[in-house]
Amino acid sequence: MKKILLNCDMGESFGAWKMGDDALAMPLVDQANLACGYHAGDPLTMQRSVALAVKHGASIGAHPAYPDLQGFGRRHISCSPEEVTALVLYQLGALEAFCKAAGTQVAYVKPHGALYNDLVRDDALFNAVLAACRAFRQGLPLMVLALADNRREQQLAEAAGVPLLFEAFADRAYLPDGQLAPRRLEGAVHKDSQRILEQALLIAQGAPFVDINGNPLQLHADSLCVHGDNAESLAVLRRLRASLDSL
Amino acid sequence: MKKILLNCDMGESFGAWKMGDDALAMPLVDQANLACGYHAGDPLTMQRSVALAVKHGASIGAHPAYPDLQGFGRRHISCSPEEVTALVLYQLGALEAFCKAAGTQVAYVKPHGALYNDLVRDDALFNAVLAACRAFRQGLPLMVLALADNRREQQLAEAAGVPLLFEAFADRAYLPDGQLAPRRLEGAVHKDSQRILEQALLIAQGAPFVDINGNPLQLHADSLCVHGDNAESLAVLRRLRASLDSL
Amino acid sequence: MKKILLNCDMGESFGAWKMGDDALAMPLVDQANLACGYHAGDPLTMQRSVALAVKHGASIGAHPAYPDLQGFGRRHISCSPEEVTALVLYQLGALEAFCKAAGTQVAYVKPHGALYNDLVRDDALFNAVLAACRAFRQGLPLMVLALADNRREQQLAEAAGVPLLFEAFADRAYLPDGQLAPRRLEGAVHKDSQRILEQALLIAQGAPFVDINGNPLQLHADSLCVHGDNAESLAVLRRLRASLDSL
Amino acid sequence: MKKILLNCDMGESFGAWKMGDDALAMPLVDQANLACGYHAGDPLTMQRSVALAVKHGASIGAHPAYPDLQGFGRRHISCSPEEVTALVLYQLGALEAFCKAAGTQVAYVKPHGALYNDLVRDDALFNAVLAACRAFRQGLPLMVLALADNRREQQLAEAAGVPLLFEAFADRAYLPDGQLAPRRLEGAVHKDSQRILEQALLIAQGAPFVDINGNPLQLHADSLCVHGDNAESLAVLRRLRASLDSL
Repeated sequence: MKKILLNCDMGESFGAWKMGDDALAMPLVDQANLACGYHAGDPLTMQRSVALAVKHGASIGAHPAYPDLQGFGRRHISCSPEEVTALVLYQLGALEAFCKAAGTQVAYVKPHGALYNDLVRDDALFNAVLAACRAFRQGLPLMVLALADNRREQQLAEAAGVPLLFEAFADRAYLPDGQLAPRRLEGAVHKDSQRILEQALLIAQGAPFVDINGNPLQLHADSLCVHGDNAESLAVLRRLRASLDSL
Repeated sequence: MKKILLNCDMGESFGAWKMGDDALAMPLVDQANLACGYHAGDPLTMQRSVALAVKHGASIGAHPAYPDLQGFGRRHISCSPEEVTALVLYQLGALEAFCKAAGTQVAYVKPHGALYNDLVRDDALFNAVLAACRAFRQGLPLMVLALADNRREQQLAEAAGVPLLFEAFADRAYLPDGQLAPRRLEGAVHKDSQRILEQALLIAQGAPFVDINGNPLQLHADSLCVHGDNAESLAVLRRLRASLDSL
Repeated sequence: MKKILLNCDMGESFGAWKMGDDALAMPLVDQANLACGYHAGDPLTMQRSVALAVKHGASIGAHPAYPDLQGFGRRHISCSPEEVTALVLYQLGALEAFCKAAGTQVAYVKPHGALYNDLVRDDALFNAVLAACRAFRQGLPLMVLALADNRREQQLAEAAGVPLLFEAFADRAYLPDGQLAPRRLEGAVHKDSQRILEQALLIAQGAPFVDINGNPLQLHADSLCVHGDNAESLAVLRRLRASLDSL
Repeated sequence: MKKILLNCDMGESFGAWKMGDDALAMPLVDQANLACGYHAGDPLTMQRSVALAVKHGASIGAHPAYPDLQGFGRRHISCSPEEVTALVLYQLGALEAFCKAAGTQVAYVKPHGALYNDLVRDDALFNAVLAACRAFRQGLPLMVLALADNRREQQLAEAAGVPLLFEAFADRAYLPDGQLAPRRLEGAVHKDSQRILEQALLIAQGAPFVDINGNPLQLHADSLCVHGDNAESLAVLRRLRASLDSL
């Protein structure tokens, strides 16, 4: 069985503003999704985040976003597919420069926020991001949401010649099709750490877990998205890391 | 004799705003200094500028600047050397992504505007830019101003392990030490196309020309910085291209 | 009969980038919609645009937009109504400062680009803009698109206590309900200056003109939106100005 | 004796990034210097900061900065005086819009960061800021650093027709002329809360306190600049508030 990895959004400070505590979380994760300047991550933050990831042996993912510091990349912007390819390439290259300077390279691409969400619905935007990955480097994988049925994503990615990585969430309730339950629904976010750990371990083992309706749902995921931005999420992350390491 | 090249600042449109007529100038130059998003050059403009350069066989230089769209990179910003290294790396990488996607790579770095000017005076900033070039790729050259005596620049660059390219100006009057005469001085900018061509050809041949005081000045330049943003400068550029080709 | 006014989007330069030729168009219009920094219009441009409007006796409208220099405010950004109220207030106040300094004040608000378009469909955003107008100054009018039936807009505006101004377009084809024909449709933009003038004069007189299907459409408009950004549009604008003045 | 006031830089969050704990500090201060979007303070943050100030009866100062989110306004940008006047007016107006919407108005202007520091040395920039204050509203005061001798500032302000407010610092060591000791000097920032309180009370009473060399220094200040961004500074602020209230 392939071991599941832990990925975490990081490098999300900007100038004088700090976000998260990457120094504590980085040793616990396998993959660091680093902001590239469009929703967070000024050049110095990017440089330091790359150094921190290298120090702790985490692989580095580009975490490109719509150009929206004010909205932290969480607002949809109606960019054309051509614009999306270009803005992903831009951010990908910017992060790669810091990776090159540190003797490594960008290992995968995971879109951020509204751009990530838009890919689920919009084939043209999905293709636009695939085009950026493919143009940047053959074999550079794109990380997307693991669904009950990922054939759409697989077909589009195969046509583009881009490998996919699938991620799942341990702290989110799921709709029957494997979409995340919208945050406005009650119970959409798991607060109980025991519940989070259980869902994580079931996903890690490829076993079914219960969706928001109480029915079994099975996801095939390469990575679990975790958080390390406060004491509580760090505590869960430490337990999750230990549990996975002992599988 | 090594043939002198022509370099030109390009890709300086931003979104809906157009600047220059790169389609007309690109076929006439050897080196295109492309804006990287900090003073000009949104991602789509960068992508198209790279494509245009590739089409016409111009080599591509990164043209990084202080972060200042409002001031077009012409205002000094008191960045620390550490910040300058990071912001040059950021822009360099962003442009390289479009180059990679087009099957080429950034061939040299020429700082823009206030950052270019600051290098003349400030060793720490000069070293910061050298550090970015060296970290990005061994052998990536930095383009700087050809002076009567470039020993300072050569020593700093040699210590950093970065090759230099020297550029001169055909349309600007020079101080005795090879600095450009400040624009506020009368006669600082040559308007007469015949005069521009003469100075260009003398520099191209490594021969002395007259400085702003009427004394001989000799520069050793690899490239001449030219302009192509209006009908007049394009006319001079066409004549200069023809003259150099017939040398 | 109330005389119809001419309004024009202006002050859309940004830093080193010029757009339009406001010096030529300003003497010909009654109302100048001035960019407020979010899609165009740096502070110096705003200051100079206000001075130009005052010099020629044009009344000044705030032309607020989504925060999107790269996309010139033409891309929808999924802002919350609360965010829209705040960003309109911000831009409105910024422009008012230059008006105060020039001894005048903002006379009306006309949203720009994607924000303007979004108001047609989205009551919450429409109310958000109305709330900004009302909070800024009692009686400050909002300029919106004149439709065959503007009862929706009138009801919302009345509830908010904000007067409306209605604008129409002489160079655009109309759908039967008074919406502008989308630009992708053939014939959506009138190129023939005679046709533009005819439509303008019919609208100015409150008389029916033909919609895109050839059927009569009647609009009640306070102002016609005109353009002055190139020689051709300026020529039409001059003829239109003369025609209206002789009505 | 005129009672000394307490002023505090506030509203310095930006989008998803939080800075300071304004809700705790606001009840303790008399004057809130609110960021205006150029170094911090998105529109929603500005709106909420104004509401908080109004709720607690703090007067509102505009805290304009160079356009530099990445550098938090702490980096000097070589703007022309004309640009400085325009960018101060822009920010001043933007904040005033939220004040108007909340039934109040901007009560004074205190430049932020590098712009504040530049005023000490540069008469042209000082005049540029004065021009913005004067153009915005007759009688709008500018807050500057109280020095041993403020005749320069008073002469410039009087010529411009702008009243001045003088502020002093309780937690900073002073040079003999009343300039703040540079932070790189040892002892430049007082860490001991008792010392901070003593200096505050002496300044509040117009009495001499010791400068960095141990010599007496007397300042005439209208306001003390305080901080409330962490538990420690809030504790000092509470004691200071109580001490001043009992004077």
